[in-house]
Amino acid sequence: MTDPLPTGATIGILGGGQLGRMLSVAAARLGLRTHIFEPGADAPAGDVAHEVTTASYEDESALTAFAQSVDLVTFEFENVPTSALDLIEAIVPIHPNRGALGTSQDRLTEKTFLQDLGLSVAPFADITDEASLNAALARIGAPAILKTRRFGYDGKGQVRLQSADDAKVALAEIAGAPAILEGFVDFSAEISVIAARNPQGEVACYDPGMNAHRDGILHTTTVPAQVSANLRTDAVLLAAKILNALDYVGVMGVELFVTSRGLIVNEIAPRVHNSGHWTQNGCAVDQFEQHIRAIAGWPLGDGSRHSDVTMENLIGTDVARVSELARERNCALHLYGKTQVKAGRKMGHVNRIIG
Amino acid sequence: MTDPLPTGATIGILGGGQLGRMLSVAAARLGLRTHIFEPGADAPAGDVAHEVTTASYEDESALTAFAQSVDLVTFEFENVPTSALDLIEAIVPIHPNRGALGTSQDRLTEKTFLQDLGLSVAPFADITDEASLNAALARIGAPAILKTRRFGYDGKGQVRLQSADDAKVALAEIAGAPAILEGFVDFSAEISVIAARNPQGEVACYDPGMNAHRDGILHTTTVPAQVSANLRTDAVLLAAKILNALDYVGVMGVELFVTSRGLIVNEIAPRVHNSGHWTQNGCAVDQFEQHIRAIAGWPLGDGSRHSDVTMENLIGTDVARVSELARERNCALHLYGKTQVKAGRKMGHVNRIIG
Repeated sequence: MTDPLPTGATIGILGGGQLGRMLSVAAARLGLRTHIFEPGADAPAGDVAHEVTTASYEDESALTAFAQSVDLVTFEFENVPTSALDLIEAIVPIHPNRGALGTSQDRLTEKTFLQDLGLSVAPFADITDEASLNAALARIGAPAILKTRRFGYDGKGQVRLQSADDAKVALAEIAGAPAILEGFVDFSAEISVIAARNPQGEVACYDPGMNAHRDGILHTTTVPAQVSANLRTDAVLLAAKILNALDYVGVMGVELFVTSRGLIVNEIAPRVHNSGHWTQNGCAVDQFEQHIRAIAGWPLGDGSRHSDVTMENLIGTDVARVSELARERNCALHLYGKTQVKAGRKMGHVNRIIG
Repeated sequence: MTDPLPTGATIGILGGGQLGRMLSVAAARLGLRTHIFEPGADAPAGDVAHEVTTASYEDESALTAFAQSVDLVTFEFENVPTSALDLIEAIVPIHPNRGALGTSQDRLTEKTFLQDLGLSVAPFADITDEASLNAALARIGAPAILKTRRFGYDGKGQVRLQSADDAKVALAEIAGAPAILEGFVDFSAEISVIAARNPQGEVACYDPGMNAHRDGILHTTTVPAQVSANLRTDAVLLAAKILNALDYVGVMGVELFVTSRGLIVNEIAPRVHNSGHWTQNGCAVDQFEQHIRAIAGWPLGDGSRHSDVTMENLIGTDVARVSELARERNCALHLYGKTQVKAGRKMGHVNRIIG
């Protein structure tokens, strides 16, 4: 067991997007510094970090210098190349651990892990070619979704099959990437649990939020979720089970479908999660600070909520509504400093305090 | 009237202490960048700023480069040298304006301004020598406080006189600096109002907080203050009067004494104020963001409070209590990243959400 990180220590963050940005601010609240490693120029996290390295994940000397300048490393997204992580890990600890990252990076590994843990997941099958896809469709049925095993987020790397006739086209669309076929789940709602675990094995969860999507991207999260107390308890226990099984250190987002047969785990994200942004204005300790506390070996916040909140993402041109949102009572703005507006790009979010 | 500052614009901040640090984070939430100008090394604000210039206020080329790199300039403390402000103002606007700054920089000017506005202040007199001090003591009475006209904060530059016999020693202690003598006010409480005004003339105030001091330094602020609704209204109206009279743009802290004859203005601070830190966890728009909104020409937050809060400063070795504070329910930590602990040094604060 290592000592808690002291004031003035530096946390390295792989990825300089909005999650890195909000992690950086949270670290500062605890008296810790951050060093951002990000290939892209003008990283949103760079505006609020002690130091920024702009370099590619293939740049070994930049990665080495980065790792040597920090006390530990975390990441804001799952798809950091393995070679970069290997190099860093030889110098400084990475939290969450590589095993947890590996599990969630690959949909097949992830689903198998969750199923082996006794949790319910959507029916799925490993797809390597047309034959395995046809066999899977025969077993799981259509409609179904073909998903690449790796590098998927916000609906990317996914093709919906209405019937077995779509098999060839769907395979062509993912260009032969390793994939899984996932059966449709008849769910009444999607909720998510933001859970945290520290090296001491303490686990803390926020109350589940209810998620609504638009065009495959999270649109709103509302807390508390309108689900039964039993389901809320199930969600939290299930999340804790996942974190413990992975010997996880940090914050994880666990997406769940609410069905007539109980909760089905949709996916896990080994990082702070868009559906946890509400905690910034609903809790004394938000998910970003909770992640920093966990990886820094600090005591966790208990996850208690002082206010009910609806979080709304500002996607693409939504950001044009900012001057109107700025006038709304009890509406907290969180903009990411991105000057270039693109369709589907997350530009910011607002948290409306609703009680 | 200028347009509101757009995403990616840069605000220059004179002073890189904890106020600059929290202003910088607030600017980031609005998609704005900050550039900190600070003579001291390892400025707390530097951990969360886009850019930092470490240079003296006498370094004209550094000041020029700083002013040219930003869209407007603000400050986190009142005692920036006039020559530096002159140089900057020739290049880029400064908010709050120089007149407001000048008024609050000098206790004699400040008291005279407030009195001319029809507001109550403690009895005071201009002190230039022993004769004027003796005359003032004869008129105002003892005990009284001799205060230097400039550069006073947290009880610095103040000498208490128990009787007229202390005159000589008191004058020696302030080394002949221009001063005022201030009579004691019999007050039941100190409250403060954090008020904001933008270039459009909109004014917004937070609910007054009740302040308690230790060793001349603010210890706690509790909101709501336990004062009558009438006094709360008086406090807010009086603050608005001050901001309007100064054509003020930004946030101001107004300290008030509650007395049997109503409210007496103690002092005004032309900046975000320690007694407004509670807004970080009590309001959707905190005082730091409110200041940035005001100087950037954005709509102001309305000052509404979603939670009651007690703020407690962590002074000097108080910071050793952090691991215990981190375990407290509904207690939000705000540490300033200062590695060197000194007696009387503000190391951080906590906001306890109390309802």
